[in-house]
Amino acid sequence: MSLNSFGHLFRVTTWGESHGPALGATVDGCPPGINITEDMLQTWLDKRKPGQNKYTTQRREADAVRILSGVFEGKTTGTPIQLMIENTDQRSKDYSEISQKFRPGHADITYWQKYGIRDYRGGGRSSARETAARVAAGGLARAALTQLLPGVQIKGYMVQMGPRGIDRTLFDDEAIEQNPFWCPDPEAAENWAGYLDGLRKSGDSVGAVIEVVARGVPAGLGAPIYGKLDTDITAAMMSINAVKAVEIGDGMASACLTGTENADEISMSPDGPVFSSNHAGGILGGISSGQEIVTRFAVKPTSSILNTRKTVTIDGQNTEIITKGRHDPCVGIRAVPVGEAMMACVILDHYLLHRGQIGDAGGKIGSQ
Amino acid sequence: MSLNSFGHLFRVTTWGESHGPALGATVDGCPPGINITEDMLQTWLDKRKPGQNKYTTQRREADAVRILSGVFEGKTTGTPIQLMIENTDQRSKDYSEISQKFRPGHADITYWQKYGIRDYRGGGRSSARETAARVAAGGLARAALTQLLPGVQIKGYMVQMGPRGIDRTLFDDEAIEQNPFWCPDPEAAENWAGYLDGLRKSGDSVGAVIEVVARGVPAGLGAPIYGKLDTDITAAMMSINAVKAVEIGDGMASACLTGTENADEISMSPDGPVFSSNHAGGILGGISSGQEIVTRFAVKPTSSILNTRKTVTIDGQNTEIITKGRHDPCVGIRAVPVGEAMMACVILDHYLLHRGQIGDAGGKIGSQ
Amino acid sequence: MSLNSFGHLFRVTTWGESHGPALGATVDGCPPGINITEDMLQTWLDKRKPGQNKYTTQRREADAVRILSGVFEGKTTGTPIQLMIENTDQRSKDYSEISQKFRPGHADITYWQKYGIRDYRGGGRSSARETAARVAAGGLARAALTQLLPGVQIKGYMVQMGPRGIDRTLFDDEAIEQNPFWCPDPEAAENWAGYLDGLRKSGDSVGAVIEVVARGVPAGLGAPIYGKLDTDITAAMMSINAVKAVEIGDGMASACLTGTENADEISMSPDGPVFSSNHAGGILGGISSGQEIVTRFAVKPTSSILNTRKTVTIDGQNTEIITKGRHDPCVGIRAVPVGEAMMACVILDHYLLHRGQIGDAGGKIGSQ
Amino acid sequence: MSLNSFGHLFRVTTWGESHGPALGATVDGCPPGINITEDMLQTWLDKRKPGQNKYTTQRREADAVRILSGVFEGKTTGTPIQLMIENTDQRSKDYSEISQKFRPGHADITYWQKYGIRDYRGGGRSSARETAARVAAGGLARAALTQLLPGVQIKGYMVQMGPRGIDRTLFDDEAIEQNPFWCPDPEAAENWAGYLDGLRKSGDSVGAVIEVVARGVPAGLGAPIYGKLDTDITAAMMSINAVKAVEIGDGMASACLTGTENADEISMSPDGPVFSSNHAGGILGGISSGQEIVTRFAVKPTSSILNTRKTVTIDGQNTEIITKGRHDPCVGIRAVPVGEAMMACVILDHYLLHRGQIGDAGGKIGSQ
Repeated sequence: MSLNSFGHLFRVTTWGESHGPALGATVDGCPPGINITEDMLQTWLDKRKPGQNKYTTQRREADAVRILSGVFEGKTTGTPIQLMIENTDQRSKDYSEISQKFRPGHADITYWQKYGIRDYRGGGRSSARETAARVAAGGLARAALTQLLPGVQIKGYMVQMGPRGIDRTLFDDEAIEQNPFWCPDPEAAENWAGYLDGLRKSGDSVGAVIEVVARGVPAGLGAPIYGKLDTDITAAMMSINAVKAVEIGDGMASACLTGTENADEISMSPDGPVFSSNHAGGILGGISSGQEIVTRFAVKPTSSILNTRKTVTIDGQNTEIITKGRHDPCVGIRAVPVGEAMMACVILDHYLLHRGQIGDAGGKIGSQ
Repeated sequence: MSLNSFGHLFRVTTWGESHGPALGATVDGCPPGINITEDMLQTWLDKRKPGQNKYTTQRREADAVRILSGVFEGKTTGTPIQLMIENTDQRSKDYSEISQKFRPGHADITYWQKYGIRDYRGGGRSSARETAARVAAGGLARAALTQLLPGVQIKGYMVQMGPRGIDRTLFDDEAIEQNPFWCPDPEAAENWAGYLDGLRKSGDSVGAVIEVVARGVPAGLGAPIYGKLDTDITAAMMSINAVKAVEIGDGMASACLTGTENADEISMSPDGPVFSSNHAGGILGGISSGQEIVTRFAVKPTSSILNTRKTVTIDGQNTEIITKGRHDPCVGIRAVPVGEAMMACVILDHYLLHRGQIGDAGGKIGSQ
Repeated sequence: MSLNSFGHLFRVTTWGESHGPALGATVDGCPPGINITEDMLQTWLDKRKPGQNKYTTQRREADAVRILSGVFEGKTTGTPIQLMIENTDQRSKDYSEISQKFRPGHADITYWQKYGIRDYRGGGRSSARETAARVAAGGLARAALTQLLPGVQIKGYMVQMGPRGIDRTLFDDEAIEQNPFWCPDPEAAENWAGYLDGLRKSGDSVGAVIEVVARGVPAGLGAPIYGKLDTDITAAMMSINAVKAVEIGDGMASACLTGTENADEISMSPDGPVFSSNHAGGILGGISSGQEIVTRFAVKPTSSILNTRKTVTIDGQNTEIITKGRHDPCVGIRAVPVGEAMMACVILDHYLLHRGQIGDAGGKIGSQ
Repeated sequence: MSLNSFGHLFRVTTWGESHGPALGATVDGCPPGINITEDMLQTWLDKRKPGQNKYTTQRREADAVRILSGVFEGKTTGTPIQLMIENTDQRSKDYSEISQKFRPGHADITYWQKYGIRDYRGGGRSSARETAARVAAGGLARAALTQLLPGVQIKGYMVQMGPRGIDRTLFDDEAIEQNPFWCPDPEAAENWAGYLDGLRKSGDSVGAVIEVVARGVPAGLGAPIYGKLDTDITAAMMSINAVKAVEIGDGMASACLTGTENADEISMSPDGPVFSSNHAGGILGGISSGQEIVTRFAVKPTSSILNTRKTVTIDGQNTEIITKGRHDPCVGIRAVPVGEAMMACVILDHYLLHRGQIGDAGGKIGSQ
């Protein structure tokens, strides 16, 4: 009942608070013989790292990850891998207000109601800083996928900021790395820059929609009923801070389709079955079909804003609060590498499960 | 690694195929001393039962549930409860076509690719018939909630059929039971009747959006990171056949809000803290706030339709298929009691977890 | 938190009470494509079946197992397999005494203290009848092993009845099936017959020690720390009713050895490394070495005896009790097939885990 | 499938190798509000610490434990607790021999066969150093028990070294802390001192039997079938390095008893039911009876000895080996605090499970 863990065979338990000495991920079940170094993990952490531009929190964390166990001479040994990130910029400040008042939209009030105690410094465990540990674990999962399923490619990007979506006809894979929003539409990126700047200056924040795609995932991963591939992807994304909705394939729009429209037709190619469309997002009955796996998730706006909001104190007094501090005007930006990391973990996990439970008993279609 | 199971302490494992002798749910972890009879479970199964009107499959199943263990003299004993439903209307038919061709939109192809074998009769394990077992388990969870958390009320209803949504200003709790669609807007229900009739006659189907609300859930249920209350609700709903998206609170629309709009303000009432709005859907940081818990999920259109679709055979030949048989034109209708059942299981499970891990250590606000 | 379950990937949940309508095992995670029929399972159940001779309970149960799901045309499909055994000889009797008094040595008192309710008919869930479900699941595990690890042979036998052990120099594999005690020493078997007959007639019972050996298990199964192969075997055996101790290899006698005596020396043979002895019981550091895996467990004497014992009533009154009924004078006899079944489940489970987590990354020794 | 984890609700995952930078325990599920400091944990670690006398390894480790998360202002917060112990005395040495040869009795060969890679420095993950992490986690469990079940007392001691047992009539609780062997019989302790000194000087080692008793555990903890209290205790003890057998109550000796002898008779006292004896070791049907819980486990002799043993190289060549280094002549000594730690974890875990699943539904006996 490890509620801070995810995954079945590739099992990740994250630990740590925003302003404690360190945080990290304990990874149990990584296959042996995977090439991994701290530098390989750092690449992914740097992508998520705060303070890289004016659109993310100005907290300055090195986010340097250390591998404390489970790796010997550059290879995983099959034993638990401890990935630790020390907190270095826990700016000393006055927490007297935040310790007594609950910030609206934050987990302050529910942590108090649940536990009767909370580490209020910087949000403690509920801080998005926890996602650094996920990104480290995701980096490990990617390294394992590179060796075990080399065709898999995982890519996340932002498709909507506030009410402003991208133009899919302008979708450009290469643009994603060329703007601070991981936006595949260069025009939208430019538009968002001005929009977010305005919100940031007014002390406000805004939500976003992130899409993560996994290409090259073999058919047959997943399971039919509860440990479905889509169930696990959905849970993985929903577990990220501030996420309020998850879609697979056409998602909410599926409701508007007829059966005729929705049925992705199948035909044979020299490489096996191909589909005429991908309304299903690459998953049928909880199991991958070999198509691109597509998920989207909505991130709510950062709750830490400079505008005054009504709230109550721990003693039950009505009051108001302004959340000062170094916050992300659009926390969805930094959710992109986190979504990628979660996808990598889920794909690897289901590959290992499939290898264990099915071996090579899967079916072929035709004679290819 | 029980992939056909859900829940932590209240753990449900479903088993059975559409056309096998029986299906059911093995429930481990139900508290002792809960009053339960087969009749109490039957009430909920009857709500989901097929063949009740022209809008659901014409398969005629009694869906009579038997309690085979774990109950003594009308009370649960704390030992595993086996709930079995025998299949009675497995109409004998010619499966030669379906055994050789993969129906688009169905799990036929992925089951084959994963397992190299599939029980093709009526969809086997991937049939929505599996949800009867969930409803039985959900009935048990409701009975436990009645004794342990008597204030909890769980209600599901359909808010959208195809592109046609309800008018929230006409929302009427009592209307829900008065139309075949569990629709809270009587005008929409009437409108949907004609719409669905047309689709049914043309051999087509359509998707839907279901909303499930839990009222009276105490603050403090859930957990912060991966075993979140919203993660578990989302996974529970996504695990239902044909579901492609799940929302909590404002869901996808959260992306469009600013932080100022999204922050549900807090003030004190004689009964404790109250919120000015419920964008969060009753969950903050993975933990219930005491507000209504609100989730919505999109159900794709039934893939079994009478229109011809292109597909391939198991031997890799291009072909076409029409899926005859007794199917639901809008499978979302029967997903309503299933969504309620899943919500009941998740709430009970998290209540037991909270009782175990926290006991009475939770915090109070003010002096009420 | 499925406390009535065992196994990781091959996960068995048993359910049912001694005098309910049925009992069984829900098996999740059996690989697909395994040849299995009810007759194949019945073979193992018949071995455990009561009433076969005067040394086991005279309850007459057909113990006929039905496969309700997960098998199609004689092969497993990869979906959950429900194995159900109906209770047919729940002799109607007067339970008024047993419902009010706690039988010493039985779980009556602890079930009451834990649950506040108990199905007292025949011991309810705590009856050794539950082991029929384990034997059914074990039969399935053996069928899977036959296909996946064809060299594995699992054999259980009794090595001690009360204080009377076997003479290892007379050990004869073929003798095991030729006496009612599964005893490999024909002389001991004869001796035990008279001994047990005397105890039975005097209304008493006696304990036993069972040994279970698995031959042909490949090196490398298991895991180093908590999911050790020996941990899982030990837990599996300890979970059998009335078991009070479990040994691996030399077991308790290991304490008496020096390091020099205990170290099984290694040398090369054309088939790979061989060991000069097997103090370790085939497991080093939680992982199989390729040697025979050897476990022993002690079964306490049946607590249901005809001699008067002091006890208390549910109302706290001192009283006495004689446990009439149809009981095993040495319940250890029927524990032999149960121990075999548990071993089969554990070996299969760890094989699947190894296949999933390690694949073919294991190391070779030398150039064979 | 976290194979390096144990516990259900109080879940401990250990990580780390003998000669890596650090090792530790990630504890998920500790209740909030428990008073804990590093000093409180250190007390228990110091008991296990190597190098304290000539009978334990001369490796000098501070074994200083740091709490990296989950504790705020001296209290647990309900979030994961990371306990880290840095390795400081990883003496640089030449590992060329040990990297190429497998030490008999060690896990060297099975790790290689399983993983195809091993961190051979000091035994890597299979080193008894891993138990430091268990002791730290056990210290936390004890602190929680102190607040939640203040009557519980857990005590471990050695009852046999090699073939030399204690005299139970000389049992003296206070003697346990007064000799280097945690021996409750002062005469045996003196006798063992000379015996072990001789073995140590001859480069040999010897096994031991440890007994751990838990007093004051309330009736009703545990579960009937697989998550039994005795199953979990047995698995916990068997998971400790070098343990080859575990007994509950009379253990192996149960086999020699008749039912009449074995049945612990029950009578009423003003404080509730009392038993005339404790053959059962405080557990009936997997559930605690309120009596003392008694377990014993056998620890094999340390495999690292100075005597020459035959073995093979990784290349399959026959050779010999002497294991030099700083080793325990009787590793059972340091297993005493480890056994206590495991018992504390299991008792706490089952208390939390009981509180969650049963609440206050348990039954009373009589009117006390």
